[in-house]
Amino acid sequence: MLGRCAARALGALRGLREGAPPARSPGPSRRLLSSEKVSEKDHSLPKPCWSKDMRLLFDQFMKKCEDGSWIHLPSYEEIATQRSQDFPTFIHAYFPTASELINQEKLSQGRLFTRSFEDGLGFEYVMFYNDAEKRIVCVFQGGPHLQGMPGFFHGGAIATMIDATVGMNAIVSGGIVMTANLNINFKRPIPLCSVVLINSQLDKIEGRKLLVSCNVQSVDEKILYTEATSLFVKLNPEKECDVKELVLNSAPPA
Amino acid sequence: MLGRCAARALGALRGLREGAPPARSPGPSRRLLSSEKVSEKDHSLPKPCWSKDMRLLFDQFMKKCEDGSWIHLPSYEEIATQRSQDFPTFIHAYFPTASELINQEKLSQGRLFTRSFEDGLGFEYVMFYNDAEKRIVCVFQGGPHLQGMPGFFHGGAIATMIDATVGMNAIVSGGIVMTANLNINFKRPIPLCSVVLINSQLDKIEGRKLLVSCNVQSVDEKILYTEATSLFVKLNPEKECDVKELVLNSAPPA
Repeated sequence: MLGRCAARALGALRGLREGAPPARSPGPSRRLLSSEKVSEKDHSLPKPCWSKDMRLLFDQFMKKCEDGSWIHLPSYEEIATQRSQDFPTFIHAYFPTASELINQEKLSQGRLFTRSFEDGLGFEYVMFYNDAEKRIVCVFQGGPHLQGMPGFFHGGAIATMIDATVGMNAIVSGGIVMTANLNINFKRPIPLCSVVLINSQLDKIEGRKLLVSCNVQSVDEKILYTEATSLFVKLNPEKECDVKELVLNSAPPA
Repeated sequence: MLGRCAARALGALRGLREGAPPARSPGPSRRLLSSEKVSEKDHSLPKPCWSKDMRLLFDQFMKKCEDGSWIHLPSYEEIATQRSQDFPTFIHAYFPTASELINQEKLSQGRLFTRSFEDGLGFEYVMFYNDAEKRIVCVFQGGPHLQGMPGFFHGGAIATMIDATVGMNAIVSGGIVMTANLNINFKRPIPLCSVVLINSQLDKIEGRKLLVSCNVQSVDEKILYTEATSLFVKLNPEKECDVKELVLNSAPPA
């Protein structure tokens, strides 16, 4: 089962990366998540645009969730935190040097990058978390608007889903974190509109640093498309820390 | 001035990454670029959604283009190659093992990832190339739909523009290439809707490998946001090579 600490982190995560509606996020992170106008649509649930492979994998993982060993992670398109009265406090606490650079007017139009496409055209994905093994599996179906070389996904689209998955793994383990390093080896191009599995694993926690690795495989696990390592740094609002200082002093993973 | 080789590479590049209309892409790569229904809109020219900083930098670089030392790179939203009758030949030549995995129906909806947003909401950018120095500068204005942490760009959006810029630099130097490694150090979060400069530099060519580095800075060049290195591998259609073999045998940059 998900521990209280991980549950808190998930609450913060929902607000920060996935925009959970407040009704589903009680507890310590409630204050940051307060909002009156957030979308209730959970994009991690089956949609008509999902392929047979995507639905099959969703069903398989939902089955694994029944004994509590795996947890289905919901995902919303709006960022709750930014619409909250608490947002200036949040920004000042976590990013004191950046707060004056943030354009408040533009911010009101802010939308989570991975949920900013119409259904089926961009990123369709659902994540499952295994607390005992510190793993997240993301089932990802990329749409036709993610093209790079004709017929294949753009490297940036793959990097985006990797960052979202390893970032989620770091957040459930470390709370509010920031990506410091992402090192991706693209081994084979991924055909456009494929469904793939992104398997991420928390490898180590060293103080405020979290090391997370992952790979991207075909659904039958016979083709290894991509491998990546990442470094995340925990942010500490109590100390009103400067994120620059934190991140500049963080070495990339060995 | 741009040499003939680089001009050919640019022709291929336009078809592969930026979707140039055939009228602007004569020469050796013409056959792959033939298409009847490609958009003529050049997204690298000023639009109403561009900010003052973006326009100012565009004007400064266009001024530098007057003596031929810098070249403005056009950018189109549709991929010409995939609509061509030659596309199956292209895929079979460059990606023989992947051709059967490509969904032809979905491919017809394919759209370049970095040009798949409505004006002003996603990636607005223009690139300039300096052939003598093997450099590309990308002026990038990110829209509100590229959000990660509230108030900041998603790491994946930054990775995408880095991949697009270093990839362009590799293509103008090496022809048709594929990203093999991307290693990104995120030093500071970038406020949502900022304009930034992405400076890329071809560092080395070793056989089929091209090493390209880059950084992401504020427009006044006072803030260093991100640094990255990348490895690209040239593809060789004459040998009907398997991209897997090529890329699997490529070590990441030291």
